[in-house]
Amino acid sequence: MSKIVVFPVTIQFGDCDPAGIVFYPNFLRWMDAASLNFFTVCGVPPWRELEQSRGIVGTPLLEVSVKFMRAATYPERIEVHTRVEEWRAKVFVQHHAVLRGDEVLCEGRETRAFVKREDGRLRSIQIPADIRTLCE
Amino acid sequence: MSKIVVFPVTIQFGDCDPAGIVFYPNFLRWMDAASLNFFTVCGVPPWRELEQSRGIVGTPLLEVSVKFMRAATYPERIEVHTRVEEWRAKVFVQHHAVLRGDEVLCEGRETRAFVKREDGRLRSIQIPADIRTLCE
Amino acid sequence: MSKIVVFPVTIQFGDCDPAGIVFYPNFLRWMDAASLNFFTVCGVPPWRELEQSRGIVGTPLLEVSVKFMRAATYPERIEVHTRVEEWRAKVFVQHHAVLRGDEVLCEGRETRAFVKREDGRLRSIQIPADIRTLCE
Amino acid sequence: MSKIVVFPVTIQFGDCDPAGIVFYPNFLRWMDAASLNFFTVCGVPPWRELEQSRGIVGTPLLEVSVKFMRAATYPERIEVHTRVEEWRAKVFVQHHAVLRGDEVLCEGRETRAFVKREDGRLRSIQIPADIRTLCE
Repeated sequence: MSKIVVFPVTIQFGDCDPAGIVFYPNFLRWMDAASLNFFTVCGVPPWRELEQSRGIVGTPLLEVSVKFMRAATYPERIEVHTRVEEWRAKVFVQHHAVLRGDEVLCEGRETRAFVKREDGRLRSIQIPADIRTLCE
Repeated sequence: MSKIVVFPVTIQFGDCDPAGIVFYPNFLRWMDAASLNFFTVCGVPPWRELEQSRGIVGTPLLEVSVKFMRAATYPERIEVHTRVEEWRAKVFVQHHAVLRGDEVLCEGRETRAFVKREDGRLRSIQIPADIRTLCE
Repeated sequence: MSKIVVFPVTIQFGDCDPAGIVFYPNFLRWMDAASLNFFTVCGVPPWRELEQSRGIVGTPLLEVSVKFMRAATYPERIEVHTRVEEWRAKVFVQHHAVLRGDEVLCEGRETRAFVKREDGRLRSIQIPADIRTLCE
Repeated sequence: MSKIVVFPVTIQFGDCDPAGIVFYPNFLRWMDAASLNFFTVCGVPPWRELEQSRGIVGTPLLEVSVKFMRAATYPERIEVHTRVEEWRAKVFVQHHAVLRGDEVLCEGRETRAFVKREDGRLRSIQIPADIRTLCE
């Protein structure tokens, strides 16, 4: 079984749109935060430190897909449940289930790669084995 | 051939993250804006007016998927090219190509439905024929 | 002594800009959230309910001023300490101190009014006495 | 007379809140963008380039104050009119008037400093004379 890390969010007034429900890009913002939080909770240092020590800038997104099942609004408390669903050689897939109590509000998959900066360009690298070990 | 509507964006400093590139949920924010802009340019009134006249609150998202090919940064000018790729009975798929000059930065598909508010809940309706006609 | 309500924030990667520090409008976003959270914690119902029951749409901002003393970055945990500094007939001033541990990062003052919607326009009203009582 | 640079904004659905009007931190986001746009239009290179060539990271905010006179909503077109109101030795004050046609929606003042990064910390410097000349 892979690790699941829970990222809690309290929906704010300003996260909602004129229809009174969460403006959807905010769900992606929370998934992005949950993605990084997953690594932090697993013991991976902040990108800022990894950039200094190993040149790793972060894990930019290659692909994302989200299914939206239920709307949500302020001031509801929700949770993003995050795990790595798949490790490939150079990319990994994170799965995020956004829950309000037992209800799934939406479900997303992010395909990401670890990147280094080389000559001002970002280049993807093999998944660092030690980071993968921390996350399994 | 279906209509294509172009939505221009100038990337701002605050749209970028500590890696110096666009924080990805902003691409979704621009696709959402391009989605509505598409309807506006086709002659569909603002949701606010449609809610008054016909109870139509908007076109919430059911599903979104985006592939990211190239990073972008400020102060680049990019364009979102939007068209309806598919009309089904109760949902439609909008395709967004985000371009910097000739380069495709990312490509997204949003599946949306028209909804009305009934008893405080949002309920999807058949695609309004007159709106579809305006958009083809 | 007036009530102080604490609103905790964990700074996210996506809240930071290419300089690696919080993109400043996010501090205002957190103060706005802290403003509403203050009322919620004091027992005031969500605007959505107050709009239904009493026509009160919210407390839009008339004026804001913020002094920034120290930068902050992810994944720091900060707190917004919020109180009402002044109640006048039709407006009130909320004071927000944003702290990281003992350090003040920034300090803001928001002048707000309670408003109702009338004929499609927002109109400010006298401070509702029962709401003020809840908040003192 | 000091230079005035106009930054146009089309208000999006997602910029608005459940009250149907612009969520106020977005006005600050547009002022921040207008602040940088002012320098760009005056001929100052992007911070990214200035960081490489001269170590100047940007112009972080020391203080901001905004008065809000009128609400705005999508899909209105507004303009931010920006000028430097005051140059002091180490700080400058930018004035932003946000207009919808002839109407002033809000008016803001940002006090900023030019900063360099030294030993991982941001430190303010004297206003660079050549940059000031470009902006007058």
